[in-house]
Amino acid sequence: MKIRIGIYGYGNLGRGIENAVRQNPDMTLAAVFTRRDPATLKIGTPDVPVCHVDDVIQYTDKIDVMILCGGSATDLPKQTPELAKMFTVIDSFDTHAKIPEHFANVDTAAKESGKIAMISVGWDPGMFSVNRLYAGAILPEGKDYTFWGKGVSQGHSDAIRRIEGVLDAKQYTIPVDSALEAVRSGAAPELTTRQKHTRECFVVATEDADKARIEKEIKEMPNYFADYDTTVHFISAEELARNHSGIPHGGFVIRSGKTGAASENTHVIEYSLKLDSNPEFTASVIVAYARAAYKMALAGDCGCKTVFDVPPAYLSTKSAEELRAELL
Amino acid sequence: MKIRIGIYGYGNLGRGIENAVRQNPDMTLAAVFTRRDPATLKIGTPDVPVCHVDDVIQYTDKIDVMILCGGSATDLPKQTPELAKMFTVIDSFDTHAKIPEHFANVDTAAKESGKIAMISVGWDPGMFSVNRLYAGAILPEGKDYTFWGKGVSQGHSDAIRRIEGVLDAKQYTIPVDSALEAVRSGAAPELTTRQKHTRECFVVATEDADKARIEKEIKEMPNYFADYDTTVHFISAEELARNHSGIPHGGFVIRSGKTGAASENTHVIEYSLKLDSNPEFTASVIVAYARAAYKMALAGDCGCKTVFDVPPAYLSTKSAEELRAELL
Repeated sequence: MKIRIGIYGYGNLGRGIENAVRQNPDMTLAAVFTRRDPATLKIGTPDVPVCHVDDVIQYTDKIDVMILCGGSATDLPKQTPELAKMFTVIDSFDTHAKIPEHFANVDTAAKESGKIAMISVGWDPGMFSVNRLYAGAILPEGKDYTFWGKGVSQGHSDAIRRIEGVLDAKQYTIPVDSALEAVRSGAAPELTTRQKHTRECFVVATEDADKARIEKEIKEMPNYFADYDTTVHFISAEELARNHSGIPHGGFVIRSGKTGAASENTHVIEYSLKLDSNPEFTASVIVAYARAAYKMALAGDCGCKTVFDVPPAYLSTKSAEELRAELL
Repeated sequence: MKIRIGIYGYGNLGRGIENAVRQNPDMTLAAVFTRRDPATLKIGTPDVPVCHVDDVIQYTDKIDVMILCGGSATDLPKQTPELAKMFTVIDSFDTHAKIPEHFANVDTAAKESGKIAMISVGWDPGMFSVNRLYAGAILPEGKDYTFWGKGVSQGHSDAIRRIEGVLDAKQYTIPVDSALEAVRSGAAPELTTRQKHTRECFVVATEDADKARIEKEIKEMPNYFADYDTTVHFISAEELARNHSGIPHGGFVIRSGKTGAASENTHVIEYSLKLDSNPEFTASVIVAYARAAYKMALAGDCGCKTVFDVPPAYLSTKSAEELRAELL
């Protein structure tokens, strides 16, 4: 009996989930839910029903884990608590500052329905969070660093696109090599925002646009660019399509800490990701945690959970015996 | 109320545990147990009783978690099941091939006594195992690599010391840079033992020793050296003491895998450790898992556990709310 997965929202992440489910032999895609007219949506898996979100209640007996693929700004704060009333659910809510509020709302709904609802799964929040926790617990006298990139920031790309005279844009977040090396040395440096990352922008402007003004507006944009060293390149739409169509990302979680009678020994723990496709990797993490959510639900647990609550063994298709014999 | 820790065996690892306990404000060292005459043992913490192992039964009400610091060859296979009859215990059993057998023995004892017994905690087995599990679950179509070093292998150093004419020796295991880079590129290369690691030996020989014969014996030693490119340096006892007295170690767990409709995207997950002191870092991992063992025992669970069974949150001193707000 395979784990029956539902996909709620079919954008980049939803397509990533669809592909990831195909790589996991213990799972099957049961249905895809969309706000669009289902007749207009072509999905990658044959013979899987595409349904309107309004009909989701008819699927409570046909889906073991519903994976919510909406955005964190407006979709998930509403959808996750709502769907947790009917399904075991999992989302990738990634507005770090609002996680406690989202948790509380989802927990209330999931405890009422007796379902498992897992939130904020992916790589950050997600695998990076787990690694911050492990490293901090192991080296209590230490210092944490998270670097992102090299990768595309959707939010920063969107911010550039809103500037007058900009047709399209792609923004890369890039960790500063010398900062990474200083952290890896165990020196535990104090680093400013500017010292940790640079930002590189590829911008397609209208023919008559004032490029100097656009560049100035980007570089001085508060929160997004003002605190960083930013490079702006104006390129053609063709070049953007040819060289910047991917969605790579990645990053580094590093903790250095001291041990010993006189804190004389230094240790460095590093976790890093180098990803060709941010949404596909996020989807792969979510699908592994969907398995865990399914196991927790089977065990009779309920309420809102995060990656911190999941024993690693729950993520695997292997039995406890196999894991001990093969991976320990 | 602090978690009362007992240390059973006071060598390098035991001293590491003692130092690590001091870094964790929710723990206190309750007693140290030794096979030696307790009167002859000086420990680093004032006012903590040093007791003979024969008296351990008198401490069942005074210790929350007993940390076993013996060796995997002969100590732990006997001690862990025995002490699991009386205490919540944790060990660092690291003979990978014998883990299933050790697990079975410890599990039987711990289930009879109703105690938690956690085995094979450290960094390999331990944190490396957890990372192999996470990465494999996230990227099912992929390939795992573990590299060790640069670091001192006690077993290989001991093997050299057993050769006639050798007074002392230190062996470093060194990962091959080009192999590491090939793995990090996502190329998923097939690598032989020889291609992954080299071995470097620093040997102090007797004055009249036949150095050519010693070098040959090292390089041809089956299992230990024959499958590797090995370099042998003959140095003085003074130089060995001056430049090679540390016990550094570390390594890399890397998995690369594919996702996408046509497996067109490659992802690389890497976890690495750079450790000034192998026993002190191992001790730091064990102490964090001792906290988890304590929480599992409080929750009423029993039996043998491994790092695969522990939700990350159990390792931390922080509450679930704090973890979500600060680390997720």
